[in-house]
Amino acid sequence: MSRSTVPVNLADKLAQFSELWSQKNVAVLNDYEVKLAKLKGEFVWHAHEDTDELIMVISGRLTIRLRDGSVVLEPGELFVIPRGVEHCTVTDEETAILLLEPAGTINTGDAGGAMTKAAEILN
Amino acid sequence: MSRSTVPVNLADKLAQFSELWSQKNVAVLNDYEVKLAKLKGEFVWHAHEDTDELIMVISGRLTIRLRDGSVVLEPGELFVIPRGVEHCTVTDEETAILLLEPAGTINTGDAGGAMTKAAEILN
Repeated sequence: MSRSTVPVNLADKLAQFSELWSQKNVAVLNDYEVKLAKLKGEFVWHAHEDTDELIMVISGRLTIRLRDGSVVLEPGELFVIPRGVEHCTVTDEETAILLLEPAGTINTGDAGGAMTKAAEILN
Repeated sequence: MSRSTVPVNLADKLAQFSELWSQKNVAVLNDYEVKLAKLKGEFVWHAHEDTDELIMVISGRLTIRLRDGSVVLEPGELFVIPRGVEHCTVTDEETAILLLEPAGTINTGDAGGAMTKAAEILN
C-alpha cells in the first residue's frame, strides 16, 4: 500500500513550528496549497492580482484590514480576500491560520519587501 | 462600502441546515467552492477523474474508505483524496465536514445514482 492514508492533523502540524509569518505547506489540492502560519503583530499591505486567498482562523483572532473596512476572524471562521484587493493582517495575540491559494502565490503579493518568504513544506 | 466584510462562521452555517448528504456552498475561492455537509451512514463508492477533493472534519468522525486502505478523520483533521481514486465515506455518528473542490464537481463523481445532488448556496 503506497498511498498515504495519514490525515493532516492541524494541531499536530502547528506544534511542529514556532516561527511567525512563515507559511508551512501541509497539503496539496490540484494546483493549490493548503498552508499553516502563525502570526503576531502587523503584516505589510499587499494584494494578489491573480488570485483570491482563503484564510481560516484556527486559534487566536485575526483582523484583516481592507481599504474600505475590516474583517475580524475568530476560530472556526473563514474569509476569502478577493483578487486585487489590498489587505493587511493584524493580530494582537499569536494567531494560527490556515491559508488556501494557488501554489507559488507570494505571501507579500505585489508589495515585496523584507517579509517576503516562500512557503516551506512541513512533513 | 459594498464589499462584504462578514466572515463565514462555520458553526453558524452548520446550524442553518439539517439535511444529510447535501452540500452547501458557503464561499468561493477563484473557481473553487468551499462547501459544508452533514453525513451519517455510508455514501456511494465513486471517484472524481478530473480533480482532487479536500475534506476536513469539523465535528464527528469520518472514515474514508479507499480500495487499498482507509483514512479516519477526527475534528481538526483533513485529507486530500487524489483525483481518480475511488472512495466511499462512512460515518457512525452524524459528522460535519468542510469540502473544497472545483465548482461544479458532482458529489457522486463517476458513480451517479440516487444520491447525486448539486451543491446549494447557503446565504
